[in-house]
This record gives sequence, structure tokens and C-alpha cells, in this order.
Amino acid sequence: MKPQAPFSPDWRKTPPKPGTYRSIFKWGRPDGFKHPNARLYHMVKDVFAMTDADFQRPGNTGDTAVSHGLPLRLDPAHAAWLTDRVGEENVSRDDFSRLKYATGKTMEEALRLRLETVGDLPDLVIHPRHKQDVADIVAYCHEHRIPVYVYGGGSSVNFGFSPTRGGVTLVMGTHMNRLLAISEKNQTATVQPGLMGPEYERLLNGAPEHFNARRRYTGGHFPQSFEHSSVGGWIVTLGSGQQSSYYGDMYDIVLSQEYVTPAGTFRTLDYPATATGPKVSDIMKGSEGAYGILVEATVRIFRHMPENRQRFAFVFTNWESAVEAAGEISQGEFGMPSMFRISDAEETDVALKLYGVEGTVIDRFMTLRGYKPGERCLCMGMANGEKGFAKNIKRRVKRICRRAGAMNISGYPVRKWEASRYHDPYLREDLNDFGIMIDTLESSVTWEGLHRLHREVRDFIKSRPKTVCMTHASHFYPQGTNLYFIFIARMEDIDEYRAFQSGIIDRIVAGGGSLSHHHGVGKMIGPWMERHLGKEQMEVLLALKRHFDPHGIMNPGGTMGLD
Amino acid sequence: MKPQAPFSPDWRKTPPKPGTYRSIFKWGRPDGFKHPNARLYHMVKDVFAMTDADFQRPGNTGDTAVSHGLPLRLDPAHAAWLTDRVGEENVSRDDFSRLKYATGKTMEEALRLRLETVGDLPDLVIHPRHKQDVADIVAYCHEHRIPVYVYGGGSSVNFGFSPTRGGVTLVMGTHMNRLLAISEKNQTATVQPGLMGPEYERLLNGAPEHFNARRRYTGGHFPQSFEHSSVGGWIVTLGSGQQSSYYGDMYDIVLSQEYVTPAGTFRTLDYPATATGPKVSDIMKGSEGAYGILVEATVRIFRHMPENRQRFAFVFTNWESAVEAAGEISQGEFGMPSMFRISDAEETDVALKLYGVEGTVIDRFMTLRGYKPGERCLCMGMANGEKGFAKNIKRRVKRICRRAGAMNISGYPVRKWEASRYHDPYLREDLNDFGIMIDTLESSVTWEGLHRLHREVRDFIKSRPKTVCMTHASHFYPQGTNLYFIFIARMEDIDEYRAFQSGIIDRIVAGGGSLSHHHGVGKMIGPWMERHLGKEQMEVLLALKRHFDPHGIMNPGGTMGLD
Repeated sequence: MKPQAPFSPDWRKTPPKPGTYRSIFKWGRPDGFKHPNARLYHMVKDVFAMTDADFQRPGNTGDTAVSHGLPLRLDPAHAAWLTDRVGEENVSRDDFSRLKYATGKTMEEALRLRLETVGDLPDLVIHPRHKQDVADIVAYCHEHRIPVYVYGGGSSVNFGFSPTRGGVTLVMGTHMNRLLAISEKNQTATVQPGLMGPEYERLLNGAPEHFNARRRYTGGHFPQSFEHSSVGGWIVTLGSGQQSSYYGDMYDIVLSQEYVTPAGTFRTLDYPATATGPKVSDIMKGSEGAYGILVEATVRIFRHMPENRQRFAFVFTNWESAVEAAGEISQGEFGMPSMFRISDAEETDVALKLYGVEGTVIDRFMTLRGYKPGERCLCMGMANGEKGFAKNIKRRVKRICRRAGAMNISGYPVRKWEASRYHDPYLREDLNDFGIMIDTLESSVTWEGLHRLHREVRDFIKSRPKTVCMTHASHFYPQGTNLYFIFIARMEDIDEYRAFQSGIIDRIVAGGGSLSHHHGVGKMIGPWMERHLGKEQMEVLLALKRHFDPHGIMNPGGTMGLD
Repeated sequence: MKPQAPFSPDWRKTPPKPGTYRSIFKWGRPDGFKHPNARLYHMVKDVFAMTDADFQRPGNTGDTAVSHGLPLRLDPAHAAWLTDRVGEENVSRDDFSRLKYATGKTMEEALRLRLETVGDLPDLVIHPRHKQDVADIVAYCHEHRIPVYVYGGGSSVNFGFSPTRGGVTLVMGTHMNRLLAISEKNQTATVQPGLMGPEYERLLNGAPEHFNARRRYTGGHFPQSFEHSSVGGWIVTLGSGQQSSYYGDMYDIVLSQEYVTPAGTFRTLDYPATATGPKVSDIMKGSEGAYGILVEATVRIFRHMPENRQRFAFVFTNWESAVEAAGEISQGEFGMPSMFRISDAEETDVALKLYGVEGTVIDRFMTLRGYKPGERCLCMGMANGEKGFAKNIKRRVKRICRRAGAMNISGYPVRKWEASRYHDPYLREDLNDFGIMIDTLESSVTWEGLHRLHREVRDFIKSRPKTVCMTHASHFYPQGTNLYFIFIARMEDIDEYRAFQSGIIDRIVAGGGSLSHHHGVGKMIGPWMERHLGKEQMEVLLALKRHFDPHGIMNPGGTMGLD
């Protein structure tokens, strides 16, 4: 008799049918998947006290074709004018498009669409051809008080573009998606906002072929959403890439910007630095569509020198020593690693489990040497830039980690990480299919505030039974870092989820963290903004809102807590 | 018969008497001097077609005691309330104090005070003791429409704090001049705005002695005005130090700020980075007292490691190759030199003359090798940071310069530069005493725009006969640099000077440069702001002005062109 193969859930391996709810909420490429491996499946059952029986049949999978029949509330005269302006072929008003371009990537939206529940929709979806279209549309909508939302890559995790007041949604990626020019002398690229990450990087890497350039370049910006987010989205939400510690956050990378606002269109100056008063470009960075629409940007680019990359990974005995070493690396003045992250004990245990290290000889060896499960912390990183510069960073990092008692585990884990860096979000669909929620929140914090924030947020999350909380620090600065919290629980009820998420955000604020390091604010975190900034600073943002958008038509309905 | 010693002007070697006009306009320490050496004196006579006879007797030296008797226009009831608030000992209303704290370091003010002409004055000079004093004064002045000006170090070169509407001037350096705290974990210092450069640096360098710190630190900010400017002034005018290419501009260095404004008092958040919408801290940076008064700031500090400093200097055959190499250095991704500058041919010739190189064997050797007078360009720099990092920078810079055909002239010129880095402004008084004007304007520019800006501004300055125009690029970024124009001419008439200066600013704007890289805007450059920014962006600054300061009491009278 053959031994029975262990049960493995029938993870969904086929792309959602076009036009379905699932095709909207599914992360990434329709045919992109990352299924839990046997170890993760085992862990999930273990942690959430589930059995194979719970994985016999998926729950709500959203495989129905979208058909909600919700009426257009926009005055037909307005719809006609707008359609006439951009051409019938650049307007979508079908049920599916209205829902697709209304939907981001929050856990809540995924839960809702699995129930085939439709919330706020735009009345018209418009695909502007160029900045003049955007200017005409904004002027018209301003005059007629029609809400305007902007869809970039659609990867928002905070209801960044949810059309809570109806109106029109402008899709920037359909036509306004070109890399317009590269200046090798200034080392800048001028782009349209709807340009998507992979295409942007492909064109920069291939600058000699595509732009007759002397060198190859990189944008240096690689958020986890890289494959499904746009350059414009990165800018207006103040995104950070996984290699931001060296290349900078989008805040640093953007040099000048052109905006269409109800108060007029302008292009900010492209000097590398000036002392000519408050910089309007700064004011627009992170304005999340509430002040105006980004229609063009000039961004800093960097030399593409992948051959110089230096990789390293270490295991620390505990979180405290990993944090200490990370601070020393960030303040050591030898240049910054491009990617760098330290995982707390729970995340490290999960990682070692998933990589198959748990229970092996290596595991016993580590434990014997004092790197014990439940305490040990993984650290990974890489350095970029000129060869000698990158090598010196690796050398210094090694010395600091060694002195902190960490064990060098070679650059191999980094190569594994690189190979799958954009794939983890694909896990969400499989877990969700069987009622397991997975989501993240992140918060910047100073070195002084780090341990308290980590402890308080973790305590709250772990106070819920059978809940995983993995944390890592990523994005390093001499003054602090970002804590990234990943929480996983068996949870399907939207209200329960919202209450839980809200509790975490409360703890982040109370624990001294920022409301966001790189996810942005959107409408989800908007309600916390005044508490976080204080009334006086909130009033500054409101004064700007009144200036740019006196009729309140730009991304209205709670963005950044402005209305 | 003994040969007659060559004539040397009787350069002023005694401090101005306290209470005189000269004591106000003289740069720096009363007993600080830098006299033109024989070579400079010779050059000056040569270029301006002057003879020893022109240097027999100085012109207007402003040695009279200040006594203008200009009446106080402030309602006595207001004066009484304000005096009562801070104490009689913290109010000055004598003729001298009113003039001293009204006067910055523009050429125009020096010319005016030499004529003993008194312009705009505050009615009361107040020395606030703490931020509550500032808050009370601003609230009172807001209520009663009394203009408020702020005096930091007094080194403004653009009428930054000129009290053009009377009212009160707050002197921050008298009491609010302390380094409040150092956080070694966050690597930050919290300071009061009136803390002066040398004291700030002394306390940071001596952190183990003064703050029981583990390490020594540096502020990394060394503007030419270092000895006579305040940390608060650096922040609110967006200053840059001579080592900004590594340490960053003040814009980068400041982390969080506390402001008193008519619209309320607030402290911005001190996260190293966030994605929580437009940053109010950014809006306040460079607001030049027009939105509110900086009363406290937390700034990034750096490890003090002078032992790691690496110095280098080169001579290039021409300006084009020096600029090309500077661009390559700035974009090479091996870290930035902290100080770096390239001088154009005219500045190089003057420098070599003053250093006594002209006409020597070295000069002939250089010329023979193709580094010819009128063409060759001097470059100097240094690297800071961790030892291996700094050494790698020097190594890479050397390679780039060698490839560009430059001649290595060792680190010696840098040591000379370091020894006298803050002394050059002292030359002004000697030259002015004999009717020779010397002044500077600076402008940031992209690499693409550099040659055009240099040519057009230079052409204009040189179109005036007998006028020296020396230019260097300093403060480097991957996307561009700063051009610093020094112009010298025999000129005493204020109207002539103003017309000339105005012509240069016109050429800077027309030539594609920014209105300022690090001097700020003040009231001098305010009139150009709208042309430079465009109406739409100017309106953003105006909307903020209306929000923070609806009665227009904060640094009114033309600051940044806001009123």
C-alpha cells in the first residue's frame, strides 16, 4: 500500500475570469501566484487551530461577473461635455470599469468584493490623453462642483482614491504613461504620472537603446508594489522603495513637478537646492490628489551598476542587539546600505520555518551558539553605488555586526529575497480564500522611540488570541527607521477587521510612531491626522486645501482628514 | 641711501569705537581684520587704475557715534505693555541699539552707514527670555497690528530683518541661545534659535565634557558667516555651509521645529521621514520670519571625526573640463566630498596672484604644461566621514581629475583655505575705506544650465569697465551646483550700486539660475520672486501668509515679495 500523500489545499491556480470581482481584488498579474508552501500551510493550521477540513473548500471567492447596475448620478449634460472633451473611446461607464477604478488594495476592499458588495463608485471613468485634457476636466469640474479622483497604479492600501463622493475618476496609466526625456547631464528623467514601475525601470536600464544615452540608469525606487504602481502614485503618496536607505524616499527623488489644480496649473523649479522661501514642490509632494493632479515630473535617476551590489546577512542573538547594530550602521558615516532590514524574533522564526531551517542541523547549531528560537533576529542587506563605496559599506557592516555578536550567514538569503521580493503579496488571495486575513501597517519612529512603539503595537496585536504579528525595521536613517507590522489572523468579518485595524492605528499613535512611513494617509488614516499633527498644523493643510481647491472637488471625502 | 619702502595704505588696524556707525557695519569681531596684502593692493591699483595717491586717506569711515534722535512711533501704551512683559532690562530703545539691530551686512547698508544715513528702525528692541515671551509678544502685536522683526546673528545680506515698518525687533541671541539637549541615540541636538555658530560647534565637539556624551559631534554647518550667524538664522533662511555637499543644506539638517505664529504655536514632528501628507516643517523652513518665529529646533548632528579628513586640490586646463569633472564627481555614487569648489579662470588668476604663485617657477611650469593664465581653473576639496569612506572619495576624485587632464597640487591649498575660511569678509572694510565695493550674489543651477548662467552673468558684470568678476561653483549635487559670483569695482554711489546689483539679479533670472542658493530672499530679492516662481506658486506662498499672519505683522515690508 502506498502511503497517503499529505493533504494540500487546492490553492487557486487559475487566473480570475475577466470581468469578475476577483479580477479586481486579486493582487498583481492575473496569472501571478505565490502559494503557501507545505511549511506555511502547516504553520497556519497550527497557529489558527485549523485542520485540513477547514481547507477543503474555499469561502467567498468573488468569481461572479461584476454587475451592480448602480445608476450614474452625474448630470447627463456634464457627462456629455466631458465625453465630448476626451472622446467617447476615452470614457468608461460600464459596471466593471466603475468598480475596478474605484478599488484599491486594502484588506477591507478585498473582503467586501469577495462578498460582491459594491461601495462608492465614480460615475464616469475618464482616460485623459494629455495634460491639457486634465486641465480642461479639472477646470470644468471645479466650475460645476464635480468630484475628481485619480487612479494611478491602483495599489493604494488606504482608500487613497476611493470615490466616496462619486463624480469622475481619471485613469493616468492609459495614455499618460511615457518616459518623456532623460537628461544625462542633470541625471534626471521627465515622466508622465501613469508610467508604471517595470516599464520605467526597463527604459532607464535600457537608456542607451531607447534614448541613445551614454549610460544605463535606474530609478532606485522599488516598493513592494513596484510591478503595479505608477511613478505619479509614488510621488503624490510619498512612497519609499525597498532600497530607499541609499536611493532616498520618493520625497528626495522627485526634483520638480507640474500640477493641475483648480487654482491653476504650474510647474515647480528644478534646481537641486534653493533658498527662495518655502518650496511649493514640497507642499505638493504627498498631497494625495487633494490639492491637484500631478501631470508631469522630473525625477532624479541613478547609475545602473548592478555588478557592484554587495550582499550580506546576519543572525543576532536578540532584537535589542540587532536594533543597536542598525543604529550604528545608520550613523556610521560610511554611506548607507541600499536595502537593509532587521526582523524581530517572531518574524525571524516564521522566516526560518518557511525557509526550512527550523529543526535542521543548522537550527541546532545556531541554538547551541546562543541564537535561540523566539529570540534570534535575522538581518539582511545590500549595498549599491560605486564599487569601492559598496565594498566599504559591506566591510563596515560586517565589523559592526560581528562586534554585536551576530553570526554571518552569507549573502545567500539576500539573493533569495531578491528573487521573490515582489511576490509575497500574492499569498494574500490563497489565505483569504480560506478565511485568513493578512495585512500590514507601518510607522516611522526615531531610534529613541523604537522599542516602545514595537512593544506597544505588538502587545495590542498579540492580545488577540491566535494572531501572528511579525515586525521588521526597514528604511533606515541616522535618526530612526520604519517599523513594518504584518498581522495575520483568522478573520473574515469586515466590522471585526475594521475595529482591529483601528485599534492598531490607535496604538501606533499612542506609542509615538508616525501615522505612516510610506503607505500614505488616504481616507483610511485621515481621521487620525488632526490628533497626530495637532490642530495648528492641520489648519495649515486646510488653508492650503482652501487655496487650491475652494470647492472641495479634489479627491474629496476624507483624504488626509481634510474634509 | 636706503631704498624707499614701497607705499602701503594705512589699513585700519584699530577696532571701531563702541557706539559708532562703523561698529555696526564692520564685519565680525571688532578686533578682527584681514588686510589686503601687497599683491592684492597692487592688483587693485592695476585693475581700477588707481594710484598710491588714491590710498592716502580713507573716505567715509563712519567713526562718528550714532545719534539720530529719531522718535519712537509706537504708541506709548504698547511700549509700556511690552516692556512690562519682558522687564525693562530686556528692552533697548536708545539710538544705537535701534540702528544696530536694524542693520544687516549688505553692501548697501555699509555704504549708507558710512554716510551716517539712518533708514528704517524698530521702535523697541526686545530681548525675549524664552518662548513664552515670544508667544506673548506675537499675540499682543497681532492683536494691535504691531510689526515684528527678528534679529538672529545679524549677518543677512538681503535686508532679511530690516524693520521697514517700524514696530519691534526681537533679539534672539541675548537669552535664547542655548543648546538644550543632545540625543546620542537619535543623533540630534535641540537648540534655541539664537545659539551662535562657534558656541554650537564648541558644545557639540565637547559633548563628552558638556553633556556627558559618549562621543564628540559636529553640526556640519559652516557657512562663511559661521562666526556671526545663529542656528535659527541658518534654518529660517535655508542656509548652506561650506561643507554642505556632504552634511547637507540646513534644509536637510533640520529635523523638527517649534514656531510661534499669529495663528498659534506648534512643534512639527521629529520623524526622520513620513508619508503623512505635505510636511508643515518644510513649509516653515525658509519662511524668513514672514510666517512666524522659530523658537526651538531639533537638528541632525554628525560624528566629529576630523582625523579622517582627506584633502585634495587640482588645476584644470580650463573651466569646461573642471565643470565636467565636478559633474562626474557629483554623480559618481561614491559619496560626496564635504567641501568642494572649482574656481573659474578669473578667480583662479586672482587666487594664484594672491598666493604668490604668479610669475614664479611654478607658474612657468604650469603654463608650459598647458595650464595657462586666463584659462586654468583651480579646484579644492575635502572628504569627511568614516575613514575608508573618505579615503575612497579622495581616490575616486583623484582618478576623475587625472582623467580630465588636471594637475594634482596636493592638499596644501586646502589647509591654507581652512585656516582662513572665515576671514575673507574682513577685507571688505579696508577696500570700502578707499571707495572699492566688493559684493557677492549666488545662484543654484542645473548642470545643463551652468555654462549659460556663468557666461551671461559674467558678461553683464564685465560689461562694466574695470570690474572684477570672480566665480566659483560650490555646494554640489548630482543634479547641479551653486555659482557664486564675487564682483569688485570702484563704486561708492548707492544708486549706482543698486542699479548694478539689480542688473546682475536680472541676468541671473534671465540666465536660468535660481534667485538664491543659500543667501535667502529677504527684502532685497523679494521683488523678483513672482517673476521667478510664477503667479500660481507665488499665490501659494501668499495663501500661507494670510493663514499664518492675517494682519501682516510678521517681518512685513517686502520679505520674499509677500507684501
